[in-house]
Amino acid sequence: MVSKADKAKMHELYIELVKLQREIIASGLKLLILLEGRDAAGKDGTVKRLIKHLSPRETRVVALNKPDSRETTEWYFQRYTEHLPAAGEFVIFNRSWYNRAGVEKVMGFCSDEQYHDFMQDVALFEEMLCNSDIMLIKYYLDISKKEQKKRLDDRRKDPLKQWKISPIDKKAQKHWDDYSEARDMMLDRTDFNFAPWYVVDSENKDAMHLELIQHLLSLLEYKDKNEVLLSGDLNLINPVRILDLKKDLYQ
Amino acid sequence: MVSKADKAKMHELYIELVKLQREIIASGLKLLILLEGRDAAGKDGTVKRLIKHLSPRETRVVALNKPDSRETTEWYFQRYTEHLPAAGEFVIFNRSWYNRAGVEKVMGFCSDEQYHDFMQDVALFEEMLCNSDIMLIKYYLDISKKEQKKRLDDRRKDPLKQWKISPIDKKAQKHWDDYSEARDMMLDRTDFNFAPWYVVDSENKDAMHLELIQHLLSLLEYKDKNEVLLSGDLNLINPVRILDLKKDLYQ
Amino acid sequence: MVSKADKAKMHELYIELVKLQREIIASGLKLLILLEGRDAAGKDGTVKRLIKHLSPRETRVVALNKPDSRETTEWYFQRYTEHLPAAGEFVIFNRSWYNRAGVEKVMGFCSDEQYHDFMQDVALFEEMLCNSDIMLIKYYLDISKKEQKKRLDDRRKDPLKQWKISPIDKKAQKHWDDYSEARDMMLDRTDFNFAPWYVVDSENKDAMHLELIQHLLSLLEYKDKNEVLLSGDLNLINPVRILDLKKDLYQ
Amino acid sequence: MVSKADKAKMHELYIELVKLQREIIASGLKLLILLEGRDAAGKDGTVKRLIKHLSPRETRVVALNKPDSRETTEWYFQRYTEHLPAAGEFVIFNRSWYNRAGVEKVMGFCSDEQYHDFMQDVALFEEMLCNSDIMLIKYYLDISKKEQKKRLDDRRKDPLKQWKISPIDKKAQKHWDDYSEARDMMLDRTDFNFAPWYVVDSENKDAMHLELIQHLLSLLEYKDKNEVLLSGDLNLINPVRILDLKKDLYQ
Repeated sequence: MVSKADKAKMHELYIELVKLQREIIASGLKLLILLEGRDAAGKDGTVKRLIKHLSPRETRVVALNKPDSRETTEWYFQRYTEHLPAAGEFVIFNRSWYNRAGVEKVMGFCSDEQYHDFMQDVALFEEMLCNSDIMLIKYYLDISKKEQKKRLDDRRKDPLKQWKISPIDKKAQKHWDDYSEARDMMLDRTDFNFAPWYVVDSENKDAMHLELIQHLLSLLEYKDKNEVLLSGDLNLINPVRILDLKKDLYQ
Repeated sequence: MVSKADKAKMHELYIELVKLQREIIASGLKLLILLEGRDAAGKDGTVKRLIKHLSPRETRVVALNKPDSRETTEWYFQRYTEHLPAAGEFVIFNRSWYNRAGVEKVMGFCSDEQYHDFMQDVALFEEMLCNSDIMLIKYYLDISKKEQKKRLDDRRKDPLKQWKISPIDKKAQKHWDDYSEARDMMLDRTDFNFAPWYVVDSENKDAMHLELIQHLLSLLEYKDKNEVLLSGDLNLINPVRILDLKKDLYQ
Repeated sequence: MVSKADKAKMHELYIELVKLQREIIASGLKLLILLEGRDAAGKDGTVKRLIKHLSPRETRVVALNKPDSRETTEWYFQRYTEHLPAAGEFVIFNRSWYNRAGVEKVMGFCSDEQYHDFMQDVALFEEMLCNSDIMLIKYYLDISKKEQKKRLDDRRKDPLKQWKISPIDKKAQKHWDDYSEARDMMLDRTDFNFAPWYVVDSENKDAMHLELIQHLLSLLEYKDKNEVLLSGDLNLINPVRILDLKKDLYQ
Repeated sequence: MVSKADKAKMHELYIELVKLQREIIASGLKLLILLEGRDAAGKDGTVKRLIKHLSPRETRVVALNKPDSRETTEWYFQRYTEHLPAAGEFVIFNRSWYNRAGVEKVMGFCSDEQYHDFMQDVALFEEMLCNSDIMLIKYYLDISKKEQKKRLDDRRKDPLKQWKISPIDKKAQKHWDDYSEARDMMLDRTDFNFAPWYVVDSENKDAMHLELIQHLLSLLEYKDKNEVLLSGDLNLINPVRILDLKKDLYQ
């Protein structure tokens, strides 16, 4: 159960998100948020909260299907580029081009060469986006193996979540260590100065939603910002650079 | 406040919607729901409930912006056609081509000739869609003048609903009677055997949501249908043909 | 070989086409030309001449591939509608929705029901387009069985026309009579007052190109029209209604 | 007038282009040709010859209009990316992203900052495309000031070329030196090892078409290549790196 205090805080954060969007529209800013994380890490729920009170016209959530046969032969980033934000747009990618560094690598959906090309090209690609004044913010939602198991089990039993079940998430537990390794490699090699990764401890969904939104707001400038609200400590979110990846902090 | 019984019923209805979607996907059906109604009649909230537990991949909500300069010269239905459902898709139009019979007519955004052409062509157009096995279901959400005023006033005060305010809804109350007349004309002339209108008394949002979803489910066939749940009386929804439009039942 | 006189006439006709396009752009007209006909009837060459001196920006040639798996489940006309002309546009469909009444019927690519639905819906669809001020002009290029054989044979030997060879045109001769029957049915049943068919005797390509362009220009109004040029007799083009389809005039 | 020998040679080259396309389709290659050059340098005519006998289905000519208001705020390369070749495609850009280094810079359609960002980003962008196995070939068609004047004058008098006249080409002669400077800067700074520039002396159109096609074919591998035909000297085409840009060889 969400506490009254948390509900009140979320309400205040929603108001800040609305102010942020007003600023984005008024100043012609371009915001692009990438959400990555294992199956059941909480991406869908986070999207839901981020957009709950935003104007649908200037907000876009992009969750691409797997590429069709033509797309698999295109320049890898091509199918993503058409969804990039133009002026005034607030865009969230629920999974992104980092698929190649995660599920595609682990499940063998791309070749080693494609993986290595990606790890090289993604730096060039994101640098260009940032040069073009896109504010790119990357979150990795992290959960423990035990928590993932619990959520996937719950999902299977819940008649309202049947559509979420895919053949791939059946393998999430089995390939846990491979996913960990792929994640560490990704966070280590694609944490750019111009586009850093933030790792979000997502064991507790409600707490995580509050912190992620607070963190996002604190990164950006907008009119009438409620600095007091955003000044609270953040315990669940860390730039990847201060984490010791070697020690596999997030299991 | 929503009662516990209503919450429980909504939960049951959500499960039925999931079953319906499973049937749509499995049988390659094509479902198209049009939601019309005045500003603040409750369209957004209805959409939210309809899709809350559906698979995003096979569900689409279409809320088109006003046409751009090229689109205004196209065949009127052209910009809508690309969003029609293919096999397995559950599509909701939040406002639709009926804009021309409502806001465009009342606000003078189309010529008389365009209006008359539309009233003629819409029959041909919808007949073709139905011939092509699209299940087309049209709901008109109806509210009283007083309730609309209350909702628009609330909206203006709510910091989370600022984006909903448009110059047009400021005129909703002023042009109340014109909108009533346009609605009556529309319901009278576009209530086709192959695509009838259902008028939904929307004064009470929560009650309306329950009934609309129950009504929708009762119209369609799908596996493991919970007939008992759907057998309850519907008091808020009526086919337009049994209403006496002359008497302006819905103010 | 093309005679000097014919070359000179074609040059004059090109100038008229440019004037026509200028009128279309200036007056915001919408022109849609459908070219139908058997394999090797001369559609590609006709398109080439029509557009040779037109502004590419306001001219569009649409030659759709066969529908992909999603498209086959859509409303039949859907994939065509996005290519309809907006104001100022000169659009040519090289084959069109009439595929269903021709190759699809003959080769069994659609069901009988789909064929019958099409024959019914096409009247509604074209009526709507015409209501929406699209000038719709339909040409059927007709050739004899012998001439088709000659052209297909030439094509097979020409190293520059290899790409034109398809498995379907190998069956063009074999199914000659079926195509004749399908054509007669189509011309008979889809020759609408608002969108008549013109049958073009295409045995002689060069003569046909001259007449088709002259005929097209004579149908339309535009500034500085060269009436003298367009007043010559047309011997190769006839409205379908004056032909006696029963007698199978075009073999 | 084109000599008989040149006509015969062009015919042979067309056959080679058809073989090349067959190889592209069979091997799933991706070919992207950029054509740049001043107004009236001969880009349209070159495109025409390149595609004359190719299969339209696997060939694409991309000539983008100026960006609309949304596009001007996007990532600069975004509107180009959707037209990049997938496997089996032969794509020609008639003008390209290099607009920013040419007409946009000279006519002041972009800011200095946008220009400098472009000059930096284009290296990253093209490197990525090449990493993704797109064969990128860049031609700059060069003409003298006198020849351009002659062609623009002819164009103005030719009733069939009216649509080619734009307010911008009226300034082509006036800004000749600015365009020269912009061209030199572009050729100097964007001649990458992975995507070099070839400068084509285009004073004589017919001669240039023959050489450009021969050059293109000689760069690529394909089955049944006619090495003898392609072994002739090329006098009009040079890699930019062997030209002494300082001396302004191409006026």
